[in-house]
Amino acid sequence: MVDKTSLTPIYSQLKEMVREKIEAGVWPPGTLIPSERDFCEQFGISRMTVRQALGELVSEGMVVREKGKGTFVAQPRLRQRLTRLTGFSEDMLARGKQPGARVLRVERVAAKPPAARALGILPGEEVILIERLRLADGEPVALEASHLHFEGVERVLSLPLDGSLYRLLTETFDIHPKRAQQEIEATLATAREMDLLKLETDAPVLRNRRTTYDAEGRPFEYAESVYRGDRYTFYAELNNA
Amino acid sequence: MVDKTSLTPIYSQLKEMVREKIEAGVWPPGTLIPSERDFCEQFGISRMTVRQALGELVSEGMVVREKGKGTFVAQPRLRQRLTRLTGFSEDMLARGKQPGARVLRVERVAAKPPAARALGILPGEEVILIERLRLADGEPVALEASHLHFEGVERVLSLPLDGSLYRLLTETFDIHPKRAQQEIEATLATAREMDLLKLETDAPVLRNRRTTYDAEGRPFEYAESVYRGDRYTFYAELNNA
Repeated sequence: MVDKTSLTPIYSQLKEMVREKIEAGVWPPGTLIPSERDFCEQFGISRMTVRQALGELVSEGMVVREKGKGTFVAQPRLRQRLTRLTGFSEDMLARGKQPGARVLRVERVAAKPPAARALGILPGEEVILIERLRLADGEPVALEASHLHFEGVERVLSLPLDGSLYRLLTETFDIHPKRAQQEIEATLATAREMDLLKLETDAPVLRNRRTTYDAEGRPFEYAESVYRGDRYTFYAELNNA
Repeated sequence: MVDKTSLTPIYSQLKEMVREKIEAGVWPPGTLIPSERDFCEQFGISRMTVRQALGELVSEGMVVREKGKGTFVAQPRLRQRLTRLTGFSEDMLARGKQPGARVLRVERVAAKPPAARALGILPGEEVILIERLRLADGEPVALEASHLHFEGVERVLSLPLDGSLYRLLTETFDIHPKRAQQEIEATLATAREMDLLKLETDAPVLRNRRTTYDAEGRPFEYAESVYRGDRYTFYAELNNA
């Protein structure tokens, strides 16, 4: 299977071989793939070569290493559409997953410049900060810090926040999320994020900032969210308009 | 400025202080921020505490370390809209940057399962692979592997490919990119990607897969792209539709 006379490096040949088995569905998600030693013996190649091939597949998110257990084909990621404004809870239910939230903080804070700019207020004005760990079937997948600013928002402080925030806003405050602007970047997780999201050191994450407007065009929420890189695929449809 | 009696950890106070200076524009992009030693002396805190604060700001992409030079406020990222289908060259020109491409590979290859699925052909059928390093003002910012499949595509092999591919397809083949489906994930760069994109070890990247359709609804391109995490922000507008 591995051609030692080829111009293509051996690690690259091995990597492509594994990738093709995964992409063709021969090794479905969750499959324990052969160990480093297995590959060494099967192809008569060095451990370093095998490590390089598997390391790249880990970087690309095709496989995941579990300490003491081996290397597994990665589970499919959660697919989130980027052009439709939905809340986390609705998203999860649409996928047959049980949404959950662990409330980390609910407090009055002075708006920092990005939140103030987004909400059209002055830095230092009071907003309500709700920080929640979002769960899919009990597994932590995202961390969400919502900054809320609208008439009467203080009442949020005494309400239960472990469910859909958007539903709560609609039902209790008659605020109807209508459209949003969202920015997405890839960064590494911080120590705190790794801890909360159960990630390893140097784990990549999707870092989002979103400003959401109500039906009257008023911004009522500025949210900073961190999504596990190994659990999320965002998707969009593009038009030549 | 640092309150040692506060419940908020000192590293976290320092981190917020630096972040606020950046977000308020007091320290604009490119600013050399104080050194670890400066912070230690100014606030009478330990080197480890300063390192933790700066380390998190590096992870979040707010600041960048340059070996032997110090820590700088990160440059603004390139903003790419996710709902409009444009080519790299057009994007760059719209931002006042000079687009460029270094062609790495142009060859006939057997389509792998993801390309085949996207293009509506069988795995193993021939496609033309064009791999290019994309440059903005001479700086490498993305790596793009386009798989093309349409009547007469072989002629691409003899054409110059260092400019806009979409313009070439339109002018030479009368193919009009009309819409696309795009998926985005956050992963780490592989060794080869780090080398080509001039990234450090464990650099986060945005990994995109895009299928593009012509005006008749036929898929003609499947592209796998890697964007530098420290150079790109994608953005989208969401509607409650």
